Amino acid sequence: MNERRQPVLGVLGGGQLARMLALAAAPLGVKTLVVDSSADACAGQVAPLAVADWADYAALEIFARQVDVVTFDFENVPAQSAHWLAERVAVFPAPGALAVAQDRLAEKTLFRECGLPTPDFRTVDTREQLDAALAAVGVPAILKTRRLGYDGKGQFRLRELADADAAWAALGAQASKHGLILEAFVAFERELSVLAVRGRDGDFRTWPLTGNWHVDGVLSMSLAPAPGIDLLQHRATELARTLAERLGYVGVFALELFVKDGELLGNEMAPRVHNSGHWTIEGAHTSQFENHVRAVLGLPLGDTGARGMSAMFNWIGDLPDASPVLQTVDAHWHDYGKQARPGRKVGHATVCAPDAERLTARLAEVAGLLGREAQVAPVLRHLTESFR
Amino acid sequence: MNERRQPVLGVLGGGQLARMLALAAAPLGVKTLVVDSSADACAGQVAPLAVADWADYAALEIFARQVDVVTFDFENVPAQSAHWLAERVAVFPAPGALAVAQDRLAEKTLFRECGLPTPDFRTVDTREQLDAALAAVGVPAILKTRRLGYDGKGQFRLRELADADAAWAALGAQASKHGLILEAFVAFERELSVLAVRGRDGDFRTWPLTGNWHVDGVLSMSLAPAPGIDLLQHRATELARTLAERLGYVGVFALELFVKDGELLGNEMAPRVHNSGHWTIEGAHTSQFENHVRAVLGLPLGDTGARGMSAMFNWIGDLPDASPVLQTVDAHWHDYGKQARPGRKVGHATVCAPDAERLTARLAEVAGLLGREAQVAPVLRHLTESFR
Repeated sequence: MNERRQPVLGVLGGGQLARMLALAAAPLGVKTLVVDSSADACAGQVAPLAVADWADYAALEIFARQVDVVTFDFENVPAQSAHWLAERVAVFPAPGALAVAQDRLAEKTLFRECGLPTPDFRTVDTREQLDAALAAVGVPAILKTRRLGYDGKGQFRLRELADADAAWAALGAQASKHGLILEAFVAFERELSVLAVRGRDGDFRTWPLTGNWHVDGVLSMSLAPAPGIDLLQHRATELARTLAERLGYVGVFALELFVKDGELLGNEMAPRVHNSGHWTIEGAHTSQFENHVRAVLGLPLGDTGARGMSAMFNWIGDLPDASPVLQTVDAHWHDYGKQARPGRKVGHATVCAPDAERLTARLAEVAGLLGREAQVAPVLRHLTESFR
Repeated sequence: MNERRQPVLGVLGGGQLARMLALAAAPLGVKTLVVDSSADACAGQVAPLAVADWADYAALEIFARQVDVVTFDFENVPAQSAHWLAERVAVFPAPGALAVAQDRLAEKTLFRECGLPTPDFRTVDTREQLDAALAAVGVPAILKTRRLGYDGKGQFRLRELADADAAWAALGAQASKHGLILEAFVAFERELSVLAVRGRDGDFRTWPLTGNWHVDGVLSMSLAPAPGIDLLQHRATELARTLAERLGYVGVFALELFVKDGELLGNEMAPRVHNSGHWTIEGAHTSQFENHVRAVLGLPLGDTGARGMSAMFNWIGDLPDASPVLQTVDAHWHDYGKQARPGRKVGHATVCAPDAERLTARLAEVAGLLGREAQVAPVLRHLTESFR
């Protein structure tokens, strides 16, 4: 028999997303090679790690020769590096799609072109434009950098017009470099995300809509399939499909949505596997990580249906005691192997159950044992309303 | 906050079992370090690999200093190496338990002491003893090496007394080194295995009984929970518990059983995670790999209940085309990243479904697409009878 050569997936960025991609790639017979500027990037515990800066083209040259496909665990990879790599090796999602998702203005413009309304917004390049934008958009509003923001970073919330000076003091210095955008604050009823995947052959699938709860701009809890979304699922899927096809997108992405007066509004698009899709590891027939690997390598996509219901706790800053999760039926612990640090995503846990009633009971119990009653409270309220 | 140190699991042997242990260890925040004499051992794709012979004590000394716990992916690790390591670091299962499972005579003696009957057997050290053993045990019978056998290796089946010369020619040379044993061939109705796990605190659990089908002494298919085992599950669990407690066993083991006239007979014990437990990765709330990691590290054990039903195809020698499995709902592909080689275990696939009827339909369809109708036939027959 001929010597076999396994495909190699290259990942720019070595955080928990790269780590979970590598863990999903292995059973497919796919090797992973990670590039990160930090020697202790947590993906390096489960895959070979090349320590290099993303702008180190000599290192990227070697990397490109070692891999069959390149993907990202972070959307803020420099566009130049992505383009440079795409001239040498297959890169998915394509740098052009990445560029749209990196720029809040391009992203929101695309949403509107695809028929997805967004909160009102204005671009802001100067202090004067901020006043004009506030007059147009009203308060409350959020001033954001157009680029390089994630997890609530690069954002300032304005409750009244008098907050303009403080907002400018916080973000004005970035106006000339990254651009700013003022968005109307939407008093939404719910936050949802639709995780979607598109293959190299155009095959397209979505997972069931996920309900999300944020604290200080960082995801705290997810629930899937989000209860009461029958009317919204079809529309969300079709919007995601339109977006993906417009961008020629390949791989997994998340479209973050608000529900306001029962209608969907586009918030942002993450061009990668996404925190709100971590429940798919145990809660869906195929996880977002496995389907991303399949998509970028040109393998057939897997079924995205849910098994029962799942809720995810995000562990921010530090891990709680694992025992309550380890001892709960169909609850799953995910420690990313990172050092504790305030605000850092260090792990998550997913609790699964066959239906909403049993998920509610299991979640309440495990949250009590973890001392995380406050974190789980909005999810339990939502669940209880869903089957009342 | 203090610098965190993750626990490190050391695994002697770097095959697919070590690979799947490492993949299960990562989400628990446990690092894995593998020792294997081969630089391309497949576990080295997902965990750091130290290339060393198991009798290289200088290398084992370095290894022991780098890990918190040592375990095995192969039961035939030299007892001396295991004992030597156990003087330096925690080793689970303990070398004494390993030694019993390494010796068919000690193993069968223990089975009988625990109340588990075995097929009739005699030890054989000389050609004359083989004749005497055949007279006592009768034909058909199987001559086996007492040590170092697995997957049908080191075995010779005797259909009639005249086969004694051929059997001795095949295995006689090993009589003085490893000892031989002649076992009565049992015309069993079914082959089952019970996967069990015992924690460092004595907590003990079994997964539902698994039905197994072998071809040429190598596992071909598994089905779990084995249909129609209500009456046998309790007895199998209690026998496994008695064995584990007698041995002070820590970790996962498999007890292979025959069913003859509705009663259980003990075949052998594998002191490690086991091929017949691979279905637990997707088919149980906690996989055998995760629970083995938890057990040897002293973490709480996870629930061993099944989700629905699962069937596993073993891929021997070479992998079939993955597409039919990748395209089937709740079917899961496992490529071990090994080179093809006749008789070698290179991967498996698990097909899950909520119940026997749907599993039957899904299995028949995927087997047809794979061209594996013959491999799946005995499982489909068994399934069909179970719900007829």
